[in-house]
Amino acid sequence: MLATLIHGERDIPVEEVPDPVLSTGGDAIVRVVAACVCGSDLWPYRGVVPTTKPKRIGHEFVGIVEAVGAEVANVSVGDFVIAPFYDCDMSCVNCLNGVSTSCLHGGWWGSKDRLGGFADGAQGEQVRVPHADGTLKVVQSGMPAPELIPHLLTLADVMGTGHHAAVSAGVGPGKTVVVVGDGAVGLCGVLAAHRLGAARIVAMSRHESRQALAREFGATDIVEERGEHGIARVMELFDGIGADCVLECVGTKESMDQALKSARPGGRVGYVGVPNGGPELPMRLLFNSNIGVAGGVASVRNYMDELLPDVLDGTIQPGKVFDLELPLREAAEAYAAMDERRAIKVLLRP
Amino acid sequence: MLATLIHGERDIPVEEVPDPVLSTGGDAIVRVVAACVCGSDLWPYRGVVPTTKPKRIGHEFVGIVEAVGAEVANVSVGDFVIAPFYDCDMSCVNCLNGVSTSCLHGGWWGSKDRLGGFADGAQGEQVRVPHADGTLKVVQSGMPAPELIPHLLTLADVMGTGHHAAVSAGVGPGKTVVVVGDGAVGLCGVLAAHRLGAARIVAMSRHESRQALAREFGATDIVEERGEHGIARVMELFDGIGADCVLECVGTKESMDQALKSARPGGRVGYVGVPNGGPELPMRLLFNSNIGVAGGVASVRNYMDELLPDVLDGTIQPGKVFDLELPLREAAEAYAAMDERRAIKVLLRP
Repeated sequence: MLATLIHGERDIPVEEVPDPVLSTGGDAIVRVVAACVCGSDLWPYRGVVPTTKPKRIGHEFVGIVEAVGAEVANVSVGDFVIAPFYDCDMSCVNCLNGVSTSCLHGGWWGSKDRLGGFADGAQGEQVRVPHADGTLKVVQSGMPAPELIPHLLTLADVMGTGHHAAVSAGVGPGKTVVVVGDGAVGLCGVLAAHRLGAARIVAMSRHESRQALAREFGATDIVEERGEHGIARVMELFDGIGADCVLECVGTKESMDQALKSARPGGRVGYVGVPNGGPELPMRLLFNSNIGVAGGVASVRNYMDELLPDVLDGTIQPGKVFDLELPLREAAEAYAAMDERRAIKVLLRP
Repeated sequence: MLATLIHGERDIPVEEVPDPVLSTGGDAIVRVVAACVCGSDLWPYRGVVPTTKPKRIGHEFVGIVEAVGAEVANVSVGDFVIAPFYDCDMSCVNCLNGVSTSCLHGGWWGSKDRLGGFADGAQGEQVRVPHADGTLKVVQSGMPAPELIPHLLTLADVMGTGHHAAVSAGVGPGKTVVVVGDGAVGLCGVLAAHRLGAARIVAMSRHESRQALAREFGATDIVEERGEHGIARVMELFDGIGADCVLECVGTKESMDQALKSARPGGRVGYVGVPNGGPELPMRLLFNSNIGVAGGVASVRNYMDELLPDVLDGTIQPGKVFDLELPLREAAEAYAAMDERRAIKVLLRP
């Protein structure tokens, strides 16, 4: 079968690899219907994270189950499934606490899991899925209409992650919200905040097309300025004190600074931007203003139960973040388009 | 009248000072019935915070109103009142948001407030109270029984602050809790967690008398170890993953580290320890485990409505943290006793 492998900086061919096989009784083999490229995939692509030997890549996919191990009980051949950006058993104490990204037995696509098994990367024709009973969310209504596929695919990562930022920031009915970051996650954060009933949502964005999508997703205001000027604009919009809830969806020192200074005293920052270079949080600023910080790597598997019905009935259409679709064999172009910011997020079809 | 003044390191006499006078229409003059010494008062006492010229000190008191300005509506001469460790109007947007420590017009005892007025320190016979309508909580039932005075006095700071740590950590019925710090605030944190329905409360303490009080306040377990060994003990107690909620009541880098590593994935640290030397928060640790951090300088004035009834009817007896009582004129000995850890917290009576 075909799969994307990263060999090194900007060297990401689609190659013939062996078909996956069931290796434990809890595995499933899934034929990928759609996958996509994540902002975090750009780190090895750009060489920020060095690649020492060729490896499978990608961690977001939906597909159809082709085979299951003898111990698999909840997933059947022919099921249409969504996989989160990690594998998890959904039965350990952390999964039951709602934090399946800290599953005691799970792991990450494209690397060894905590039990030593290998999970394939997702940008390929097929994927071996460990802990299939826990990892895979079955769409009970069966094969979805083609136009639903992109929306369902966002539940693998960006929509669940935007939702996590909103939940972590305490977004609820009537709240005021600022979203820092206009990538796919930030835009999904706007949508999540709107879905949760926020009264006012400021999207911080300098890109016209992203501003338009943010407005479509529920943003009531756009702030183009950054840094001190951006904070000053936010203060103008919110009584001079800042917003109740701030979603940090970038992960740099600058974006976190922007987020912390956009929150009102007693407000909360929900962050999902992968901390890039480890910006540490300034305790004294937080202490003096009682600004809380919560979030982290989003347990999107836990959120699927809540979000899936709204995707299936069209209440939310997060798949609009995909503004380019390519065949799997053009994965390299998908990476280039995102790297050069020609596309927000690229969908790949095997 | 007599009042405590700090002149410099370990130089803290009680001296004759002018009686306070009403200086704005919103002031009140309160005759102090009981005051006390706070752990944070030890900073200038020890010279950690330098004192450049003699100044009034103390920020916790209860007393009887002796005079009110023309604009004061909610407080009357003869009322028994509790003051929080700051002054606040309780009508600005931050006060209404529950964050009266960020009052747009308030300030701190012993220094200028945000409007430029001076608020007396509290370790004296009388205090001029700015924004009396907001600052002072009237005990409607009148002059309390003498044995209630210490308990009421804790609402000025330590009980409200321990409660803030618990609320910020998300303590509620059935939760597992670790409390880092066995000072007056940590002990009140144990009591607050118990009051909020925690199922299990670990107090980290190496002092026998404090352990005993922690148990009396509701601690179910004591951990004497610190650092790595302390964290290992906490893990043993909580499924190898840590507690739902951790209260950080010290404010050092070591105590925050202990707190963060005692929380389970998805858990929350509520902190009220004044950040001493600014320990910054390690983002990657928080991100990977979804540990949230909230808290800060506690808005104890906002909590008085909730906590006062429980003090008045004897449900909670936080005043047990006072293990020494001295006349005001022996303030210097009160400071020495706390500095040398001969006392947890000292009550002063003018």
